[in-house]
Amino acid sequence: MKILFVAGDPKPERWTQPLQALLPEAEIHVWDPQGPAVGADYAIVWQPPAELFERETGLKAVFNLGAGIDGLLKVPNLPRGIPVVRLEDAGMSVQMAEYVAHQLIEASRDMAVYRAQQRDNQWKIHRPIKRREWPVGIMGLGHIGKRVARLLTALDYPVSGWARSQHRIEDVTTYSGDAGFEEFLAGTRVLVNTLPLTEATRGILNHSTFARLQPEAMLINVGRGEHLVEADLLAALDEGLLTRASLDVFSREPLPDDHPFWQRKDITITPHISARTLRDATLEQITGKIRRLAAGEEISGIIDIDRGY
Amino acid sequence: MKILFVAGDPKPERWTQPLQALLPEAEIHVWDPQGPAVGADYAIVWQPPAELFERETGLKAVFNLGAGIDGLLKVPNLPRGIPVVRLEDAGMSVQMAEYVAHQLIEASRDMAVYRAQQRDNQWKIHRPIKRREWPVGIMGLGHIGKRVARLLTALDYPVSGWARSQHRIEDVTTYSGDAGFEEFLAGTRVLVNTLPLTEATRGILNHSTFARLQPEAMLINVGRGEHLVEADLLAALDEGLLTRASLDVFSREPLPDDHPFWQRKDITITPHISARTLRDATLEQITGKIRRLAAGEEISGIIDIDRGY
Repeated sequence: MKILFVAGDPKPERWTQPLQALLPEAEIHVWDPQGPAVGADYAIVWQPPAELFERETGLKAVFNLGAGIDGLLKVPNLPRGIPVVRLEDAGMSVQMAEYVAHQLIEASRDMAVYRAQQRDNQWKIHRPIKRREWPVGIMGLGHIGKRVARLLTALDYPVSGWARSQHRIEDVTTYSGDAGFEEFLAGTRVLVNTLPLTEATRGILNHSTFARLQPEAMLINVGRGEHLVEADLLAALDEGLLTRASLDVFSREPLPDDHPFWQRKDITITPHISARTLRDATLEQITGKIRRLAAGEEISGIIDIDRGY
Repeated sequence: MKILFVAGDPKPERWTQPLQALLPEAEIHVWDPQGPAVGADYAIVWQPPAELFERETGLKAVFNLGAGIDGLLKVPNLPRGIPVVRLEDAGMSVQMAEYVAHQLIEASRDMAVYRAQQRDNQWKIHRPIKRREWPVGIMGLGHIGKRVARLLTALDYPVSGWARSQHRIEDVTTYSGDAGFEEFLAGTRVLVNTLPLTEATRGILNHSTFARLQPEAMLINVGRGEHLVEADLLAALDEGLLTRASLDVFSREPLPDDHPFWQRKDITITPHISARTLRDATLEQITGKIRRLAAGEEISGIIDIDRGY
């Protein structure tokens, strides 16, 4: 079988060498913009050029090197009729849950206050947390949202979740669709976004959403920068609708040097590190699926291109 | 039923008001050293005077307002033949697990580095964590140690545990006694202390212990200050045996203003806040047990006075 790696990595051998080790029988090619067709059976891609699908017409499946497929869906001639597969978890959901927990604990346990006190040799105890004063609402209940929910229920926070369709998760109050959105927000102080980016979710983190949250609300965005209306976040912070935001994703990445977010004390910025693709786990997952497809078995993670996730 | 509150709190109404709300049918009294007997059925106590048990001879049970019962056991005429009950957990173990997780994630995810970068408008991604490079070893496997272990296994860290006697915990490698201590330390990078303070554990966090850990080790102490030999910690940090320490407890609290720990960049200090007694959870637990006793049901947490715990 022939596998084509199309990811714009300056050191593609970091991927192709372990890939070859996992699939010794495969013939592995790296995408060459000028090169001829290689007759690939499978493509492993990250934000591929449209030329890929013009040139390689015998593909049996396309594997996205990430969980978010908004970049892939921008390709106009994404082939229909073959599986287009996104990365499922591959070590990312636990990282993201850990990141969300850390940002929540920073706030709920006054950790920045204690760090500041240490700089002043100051021993001062603040009132203990009451977990029921920190209800968390998770937008998006896929792999990542569910893992965040499980972790935060294990920490005894009240957790609710919202998604387009109805989900059932132990110890989590779930809401769905437009009908459930307002009630979900009304019960939420810490809003965690893990949604996929679609036309329906773009800009969903806006002033109207923030205005419906509980007082002293907090936003944690680990979805996509385009979910957030940036001007609305600044307004909501200035108006006191929100007291703080932790942002790992931005409409423009890297976040421009002169962006107003950088020097806000009420915004925590991390450079899109809440979940990193782990090469080993990623390649094990993709090669496992290639083997199953080659054996005529079913695989999970196939995208519904029209739905957008 | 009559309940007597005996805790020397200058504002006993902070306890008796929510107690009344939880047990509307009860008649609640606050201990008056000069007062007559009230004919109490239940006493809720913290370091009570011996006079209590001379005066109130109809008690059906005594509830200690803490998990530690050394203060209660000093009372010479503690009644026999009725349940003397200690506080169990009451929201403390989850707080401590959360604190430990936060300190671990601070280190493993470079959170301080990202905060410093934000101050400089700097977007720079560091290599992702490999969880297997952060094996955690938990000293002490009581309520708290077990809860820490469960949380960190849920975060996919390799976790081992060590205690005086052998324990079995799912997904945790356990060691016991002097025989298991060295092997436990050899597999540990992040050493978490949740031990009780006894003559056997005083000073257990010493240079010899630190020298046996994996490279780039980290200490998280949420046990007691007296577990740690302070000079050995400073030496181990200076020698590079440890790269950082998070300390919530100290031999002298408040930590003296001129203590060398305060201004160390490699030591994180918090003022004994990793787990606080939560009034609501405490009262819910005690009133729940009063209801069960009144209904003739069994309860947990009864002290064996002769055994001492």
